[in-house]
Amino acid sequence: MDREALARILQQVRTEAVSVEQALSMLLPAEVDLGFAHLDLDRRPRTGLPEVVYGEGKTGPQITAILRALHEAGEVAVATRVDATLAAEVCVALPGVTHHAVARVLVWLPEGRHPEPSDAPVAVVCAGTSDLPVAEEAAVVLEAFGLPVHRVRDVGVAGLHRLMPHVETLRACRAVVVVAGMEGALPSVVAGLVGRPVVAVPTSVGYGAAFGGIAPLLGMLNACAPGVSVVNIDNGFGAASVAALIAGIPTWNG
Amino acid sequence: MDREALARILQQVRTEAVSVEQALSMLLPAEVDLGFAHLDLDRRPRTGLPEVVYGEGKTGPQITAILRALHEAGEVAVATRVDATLAAEVCVALPGVTHHAVARVLVWLPEGRHPEPSDAPVAVVCAGTSDLPVAEEAAVVLEAFGLPVHRVRDVGVAGLHRLMPHVETLRACRAVVVVAGMEGALPSVVAGLVGRPVVAVPTSVGYGAAFGGIAPLLGMLNACAPGVSVVNIDNGFGAASVAALIAGIPTWNG
Amino acid sequence: MDREALARILQQVRTEAVSVEQALSMLLPAEVDLGFAHLDLDRRPRTGLPEVVYGEGKTGPQITAILRALHEAGEVAVATRVDATLAAEVCVALPGVTHHAVARVLVWLPEGRHPEPSDAPVAVVCAGTSDLPVAEEAAVVLEAFGLPVHRVRDVGVAGLHRLMPHVETLRACRAVVVVAGMEGALPSVVAGLVGRPVVAVPTSVGYGAAFGGIAPLLGMLNACAPGVSVVNIDNGFGAASVAALIAGIPTWNG
Amino acid sequence: MDREALARILQQVRTEAVSVEQALSMLLPAEVDLGFAHLDLDRRPRTGLPEVVYGEGKTGPQITAILRALHEAGEVAVATRVDATLAAEVCVALPGVTHHAVARVLVWLPEGRHPEPSDAPVAVVCAGTSDLPVAEEAAVVLEAFGLPVHRVRDVGVAGLHRLMPHVETLRACRAVVVVAGMEGALPSVVAGLVGRPVVAVPTSVGYGAAFGGIAPLLGMLNACAPGVSVVNIDNGFGAASVAALIAGIPTWNG
Amino acid sequence: MDREALARILQQVRTEAVSVEQALSMLLPAEVDLGFAHLDLDRRPRTGLPEVVYGEGKTGPQITAILRALHEAGEVAVATRVDATLAAEVCVALPGVTHHAVARVLVWLPEGRHPEPSDAPVAVVCAGTSDLPVAEEAAVVLEAFGLPVHRVRDVGVAGLHRLMPHVETLRACRAVVVVAGMEGALPSVVAGLVGRPVVAVPTSVGYGAAFGGIAPLLGMLNACAPGVSVVNIDNGFGAASVAALIAGIPTWNG
Amino acid sequence: MDREALARILQQVRTEAVSVEQALSMLLPAEVDLGFAHLDLDRRPRTGLPEVVYGEGKTGPQITAILRALHEAGEVAVATRVDATLAAEVCVALPGVTHHAVARVLVWLPEGRHPEPSDAPVAVVCAGTSDLPVAEEAAVVLEAFGLPVHRVRDVGVAGLHRLMPHVETLRACRAVVVVAGMEGALPSVVAGLVGRPVVAVPTSVGYGAAFGGIAPLLGMLNACAPGVSVVNIDNGFGAASVAALIAGIPTWNG
Amino acid sequence: MDREALARILQQVRTEAVSVEQALSMLLPAEVDLGFAHLDLDRRPRTGLPEVVYGEGKTGPQITAILRALHEAGEVAVATRVDATLAAEVCVALPGVTHHAVARVLVWLPEGRHPEPSDAPVAVVCAGTSDLPVAEEAAVVLEAFGLPVHRVRDVGVAGLHRLMPHVETLRACRAVVVVAGMEGALPSVVAGLVGRPVVAVPTSVGYGAAFGGIAPLLGMLNACAPGVSVVNIDNGFGAASVAALIAGIPTWNG
Amino acid sequence: MDREALARILQQVRTEAVSVEQALSMLLPAEVDLGFAHLDLDRRPRTGLPEVVYGEGKTGPQITAILRALHEAGEVAVATRVDATLAAEVCVALPGVTHHAVARVLVWLPEGRHPEPSDAPVAVVCAGTSDLPVAEEAAVVLEAFGLPVHRVRDVGVAGLHRLMPHVETLRACRAVVVVAGMEGALPSVVAGLVGRPVVAVPTSVGYGAAFGGIAPLLGMLNACAPGVSVVNIDNGFGAASVAALIAGIPTWNG
Repeated sequence: MDREALARILQQVRTEAVSVEQALSMLLPAEVDLGFAHLDLDRRPRTGLPEVVYGEGKTGPQITAILRALHEAGEVAVATRVDATLAAEVCVALPGVTHHAVARVLVWLPEGRHPEPSDAPVAVVCAGTSDLPVAEEAAVVLEAFGLPVHRVRDVGVAGLHRLMPHVETLRACRAVVVVAGMEGALPSVVAGLVGRPVVAVPTSVGYGAAFGGIAPLLGMLNACAPGVSVVNIDNGFGAASVAALIAGIPTWNG
Repeated sequence: MDREALARILQQVRTEAVSVEQALSMLLPAEVDLGFAHLDLDRRPRTGLPEVVYGEGKTGPQITAILRALHEAGEVAVATRVDATLAAEVCVALPGVTHHAVARVLVWLPEGRHPEPSDAPVAVVCAGTSDLPVAEEAAVVLEAFGLPVHRVRDVGVAGLHRLMPHVETLRACRAVVVVAGMEGALPSVVAGLVGRPVVAVPTSVGYGAAFGGIAPLLGMLNACAPGVSVVNIDNGFGAASVAALIAGIPTWNG
Repeated sequence: MDREALARILQQVRTEAVSVEQALSMLLPAEVDLGFAHLDLDRRPRTGLPEVVYGEGKTGPQITAILRALHEAGEVAVATRVDATLAAEVCVALPGVTHHAVARVLVWLPEGRHPEPSDAPVAVVCAGTSDLPVAEEAAVVLEAFGLPVHRVRDVGVAGLHRLMPHVETLRACRAVVVVAGMEGALPSVVAGLVGRPVVAVPTSVGYGAAFGGIAPLLGMLNACAPGVSVVNIDNGFGAASVAALIAGIPTWNG
Repeated sequence: MDREALARILQQVRTEAVSVEQALSMLLPAEVDLGFAHLDLDRRPRTGLPEVVYGEGKTGPQITAILRALHEAGEVAVATRVDATLAAEVCVALPGVTHHAVARVLVWLPEGRHPEPSDAPVAVVCAGTSDLPVAEEAAVVLEAFGLPVHRVRDVGVAGLHRLMPHVETLRACRAVVVVAGMEGALPSVVAGLVGRPVVAVPTSVGYGAAFGGIAPLLGMLNACAPGVSVVNIDNGFGAASVAALIAGIPTWNG
Repeated sequence: MDREALARILQQVRTEAVSVEQALSMLLPAEVDLGFAHLDLDRRPRTGLPEVVYGEGKTGPQITAILRALHEAGEVAVATRVDATLAAEVCVALPGVTHHAVARVLVWLPEGRHPEPSDAPVAVVCAGTSDLPVAEEAAVVLEAFGLPVHRVRDVGVAGLHRLMPHVETLRACRAVVVVAGMEGALPSVVAGLVGRPVVAVPTSVGYGAAFGGIAPLLGMLNACAPGVSVVNIDNGFGAASVAALIAGIPTWNG
Repeated sequence: MDREALARILQQVRTEAVSVEQALSMLLPAEVDLGFAHLDLDRRPRTGLPEVVYGEGKTGPQITAILRALHEAGEVAVATRVDATLAAEVCVALPGVTHHAVARVLVWLPEGRHPEPSDAPVAVVCAGTSDLPVAEEAAVVLEAFGLPVHRVRDVGVAGLHRLMPHVETLRACRAVVVVAGMEGALPSVVAGLVGRPVVAVPTSVGYGAAFGGIAPLLGMLNACAPGVSVVNIDNGFGAASVAALIAGIPTWNG
Repeated sequence: MDREALARILQQVRTEAVSVEQALSMLLPAEVDLGFAHLDLDRRPRTGLPEVVYGEGKTGPQITAILRALHEAGEVAVATRVDATLAAEVCVALPGVTHHAVARVLVWLPEGRHPEPSDAPVAVVCAGTSDLPVAEEAAVVLEAFGLPVHRVRDVGVAGLHRLMPHVETLRACRAVVVVAGMEGALPSVVAGLVGRPVVAVPTSVGYGAAFGGIAPLLGMLNACAPGVSVVNIDNGFGAASVAALIAGIPTWNG
Repeated sequence: MDREALARILQQVRTEAVSVEQALSMLLPAEVDLGFAHLDLDRRPRTGLPEVVYGEGKTGPQITAILRALHEAGEVAVATRVDATLAAEVCVALPGVTHHAVARVLVWLPEGRHPEPSDAPVAVVCAGTSDLPVAEEAAVVLEAFGLPVHRVRDVGVAGLHRLMPHVETLRACRAVVVVAGMEGALPSVVAGLVGRPVVAVPTSVGYGAAFGGIAPLLGMLNACAPGVSVVNIDNGFGAASVAALIAGIPTWNG
């Protein structure tokens, strides 16, 4: 909070235009304390993104509790890195939740609310079939945020002719998420063809000197075409977050 | 080019609506061959970004020749990584060129042309004074592209109170470039406060276990706040390109 | 496609020597879309190598579907990295397929077609018994491509006298694949004795400071004898592809 | 030497068909001892490649002495990694020697001898202008070995349309050396278009996370297109040696 | 032992003020030999810290034997890295022992003895819920040493407002242990707000470029705020030891 | 600031016990803006440590300006990493400043003020003579903060008898800074003998597999004796800061 | 074989003092081909060390066959890295074989043969109890070679007083194998106290920044005391081989 | 010192057979304090090796003072890593000192003293001419210790026939130091041919993926022939120390 905004509130306190309690709620953020976690309900107004649950290492009851709290607050409730067994456990407790199996993502849309139509679609481009789970994590999260998504699959640089028919589609998007393992060259090629910000996701697909994703990570950081930025290895959710902030998350009404 | 567009052109060739020569120029991109380099004048229509000269390892006459060719084509002519000595050599040959010393960038604006006013400013946030050259490279390139820039300096995480007064300014921007060395924690903090895409630039500032920028690079890739993507170490130009594609480069008229 | 070839096709379209449809099939490559993958049947005419299935991470039905499509197109159908369980599943569905257990490779030769005899054999040299699976992957793939293979085994540099009797055989080959783990010195020694291109494959055999194949990889990249090039750790298939392109894949008739 | 060849020589010794001295010269290789180095004149018959001097760290007189000894033995005399100052020193002493400045290579062709015409040209493809010294090292060494060379320059993956016009030329070559820095994606793209063995050379060009060539090295080792093998960072000479053994070094007559 | 102390003992031997046996026990440390281990009962007088058992790789009977020996010597008996199965085995044999499940620590307090009240509390701050086991290892060990502990949880840098309400509590402590994974930025932020020595513990929480804790380790070593020192990845016990030496372990009476 | 403190200030504003301006100065920290840097005068009350200038990369006039501002605010003014040439420039401008040549530290003590006597000395132990500059940086900074320092030199683990005479001295200190390169074993040995917190500083001394300090850094992080924490390679200042917070910086009176 | 020895044999062939067959057996080494491996019976005369079987990755029948062949040739038959299950399988087939469980080594002494008494014992020093398997691998192999072994256990650098009583024993040995994990400082300390060659073995014991043995490996390579050389991580057998060659393997008679 | 020896001295003190002063000199080691360094004159009786000066980073006067002190104590005085300029400075001050230029070693033999003849020569084998400085450092130090040295040069694995004539010489030595860069394969080959302990020294010779000696270091640690141990990169002195302890340093008489 900058000096002016703070002075304004203090002035209102002085003139009793706002009470001390009101001023406190203006100066301090709201949270829900679930015991094992602090739920940050203030995150969307503050950062533009709703809180999303990282499922890895959490138990079914923990995920269930957080999704329920988010849902009760009227939010889109999303959990990533949730495998089939854990998902089944949550879905029994919360019948409204959908599990996207390839993406390993749980989604619970708020009832009676819909995003306003967006004219800023995001493309999710996937180099090989093994990269699909990461690409789907990105795509499903973007759709849960209310954004239209174009999926382009199996267009690795070993056969560039497969990419070419999709170039016009990519140019019509607001941002392009590109998911690739091995040498990670696809983001460079896409950025050299399409005038849109490319969010590159290296995957841990590959073996030997791929080193669990270091090879494509370095390749993407050294992309020779401008317009490429990179997120962590296998971080489909991270790419979706960046792309959503670029495209702008639509307002949900209802 | 996709199947439909290609079929359309072939049909026009068949009906002689376009000549073979015209079809060739539609199917093949235009270049200027300077002998030592192929100048890619087609880059802006194709990728949204004008070609920018990477000055490191090039001679004064080479930089001069490329800037002149870009200028004659009516483009904004920019060269990065140009130190004072080299810059002096170029500026004598091309009096219209300006050298931004801290940023080590040469800029030659096209005469009589101006960008249309943009309502999508970009912020360039810099953690420490040693990170300034990288931050200025980003800022100067963004301004050369015609975008308004807000600079925020010396706001490292060791004294977070220095960042707080700027939060509203950052929220008013379309994208935030964050430049930091050492542990590279600033992008996480900014992304946790501001609902805008953060383009993080690790710098090679620091010593010992900073390992020439590996420490902040890893820190930024592992940023715990969503909305952060990363470019190469010290790559201010790369961050500017990504931010410019996010904000949208204004049309230059005149 | 270069300017001249493109101009020629356009001219033929104009003169109606070829139809628009024919021109499109000349300008765009052929693919089979299996839903979960695009099969690149154009690969052999374009790159000299038939498409080979990388089995890791694929299901039995997926491998079965791709092998069947390749076989129906008259191609040699090969899948690598297929373990015994998965292989049994595929072989039940496709009785013509053979599983090479040590190599973990499935091969389905086209019926009624045979490669023309080749006078360009390839040697596959293996340092230790633990490197055998990688060496066999290379040997089986080469044989599936129709090339004669000479296998030389257990000739590590700790007992060089074991290599010496094979030198004349190696000199008679067109290319030498050398597979080794630990310090990876065998390719240097072979290249110092034999005037043939050596394709070196580091293996992940070893422990401690072998670091999963980094030690032999670095050793091979720094080979002090000229004539050595290197493929990825454990990449027997990759070495076979390089050696096949060096020796020349024979035409299959019938 | 294998058992049979050895038995044959021993038999000839026993029957006095050859003397003990002759047998010794058949069993032991010939060398020239220059004091500071053993010159391996037996290398070409044994390995197909003439000995080439690695100039780095050697003095002018040392390089001069080795080149003279090779020349007197009728060989092509070549020294790599020789900068302008050192080259001047050698060229004054040996007026027949030519210095290729960009490649930093000294060449002294044997007088009155010429290679037989070769129908197996080698292509040397270079991604960016900064990679040129490494590419030229490869090209000049190949020409000194008597092989025809096709040079293709400045065709990085950020503008793939620049590569396309050269595809037919590359297909007509026997081997393709591809030199690239940054993300090192060009070999994959070339191997996906051209049915020839690709010898990939990563360069130390780039900054930050290029890590002196590690990024393109890993990219090339993980190339998703088969047919790519890799040599050490900046090792143009090594790539030339591999490509020459693939194409076959022509006999020099005269 | 320095020269003066040694001379004093020798003088006492000479004057028969102490016997040779007594001198030996003054010059040599006491140990308990358990066959499989030497128990270092002299450690607390020498280093201020009691011996603590590192449980990983030890069997139930071994841990039981060591804890019993420590307990019989009147010491606090503590074992770390003991999972539930192993703990059950020990607790059956030694009913006085308590297992702290999240911390994976066994504690057996000496009967009838209590630490003197300490006015030097230690804070244990934890960035995320996944870091909790490491933080609890630190907290439980500190409490076993007799020190008061303040726990602060789930205050990662992505939502700094959650940390702010705890600043006064942290300032009131004598040392602050900060446990964090991912980019490891929390110690810098804490040290910039609180005038106390910060002992930073990187955790192996995270994925991809977190590299099992390397990312937060480097981040903490490069902390831009002074006052931060670092222990090994996941080493909660190590941090507790450092913090206990800073705060001063209270005397146990009784 | 926590909820209660904030509520208290707001209440005082409401009751007009404090003015809005006063409240603002209580809620926002004080800074001096030097144009090129924000001087954080609030750092000592907030963090217990005065601001210290990191000299590397700064110009003489910049260092001079910051030292003068600190001095005028009554602070101890210290700058680290200042070599002889730069120091001379500053000392001419500010005659009160002393340059410690081995430590490369500038110190300007406030006139007429002295620290209260401290009974908490800090030891600085140095393994080899090459580690001396880093050890002296730590020692000089500690003395500038007003703490008594005991220096112990040249006591590497290759001759442990040299360390033994100093053990009693080390035990009498409040904290022990241990500076070592090569294998970095000295902190473990010291912590095994002395019951005090050991702040370990790896140095970049050594060659080959010392890797610029990585070897001692890893050694210290894996110290088998509890009570050791580690700061960045060559970071003498960092170790001094940690040790000063442990020992407690004395109040300066006058 | 050098020139003189070769000339001598050839001369003998010429004068028919030896037959061609005899000459061949003098010029070529003897091997036993087991199908899956070449057994190198010539190894002990050539290298001083008998062939030892590396058990990892081999099947029970393979190990059985090799041990039997070695035993039948009158050799000490040893296999390392053999766990309990595999050992049981071999011991049923070969009742004369002993399994050393901690060392995971199989030994089959030749019947009726004994080593001549050696006056060159070897010490095997072990830092912690977790390092014991590696230390025992070294000790058991040395004893199988016929050398006397002194074991010293649990003498890590955190309690140096435990090492001191063993110094005279170590000085009486011909070589000292030192096995340690974590920071790997023990070899330096031993070499600083004992005038014997120290063969250091880093172990993969430890966690976090021990990086599977990299930390002690680097520590040992950077040992500040001369007289230390290093073998691979966990390579107890390798250390035994080096120590045996230093001490001299005794002749076995009978 | 063990319990018995200590008890014996204490008994002698008690019976006044030795004075307290005498007992102190028996219990504490002797040193010479040069102000900037502690000279460890006790090192040869304790460790078998005389103290050797590491010249890097020391000044001429410092080296001069240490060499003089060693010489006055009757020792062989040796300093390593001394370049020509520094050597000249020392040799002017100490005319008895010899500088070995390639080895960069200073030697001052004690006057009137000679080593007893040794029958335990050491071989120093060098792979390439660029490795010569490191090999010579080893050879010169060994000679200064009084050991006979056999030098074998320029016998890299690319031409193994050059090594063969030296095998008998190597077998006649007591230890073999092998110095190599690039892939570091020579120690494996030597150990496979010669029954002597091989002390391997990796050098920083090479470029690209040699990574300043990491490639040969890893190669040597993974040597597939037993009998190889390794010292630090470029550490010729370290190898000499190990080899000298293996061969036994002769007594110097006179």
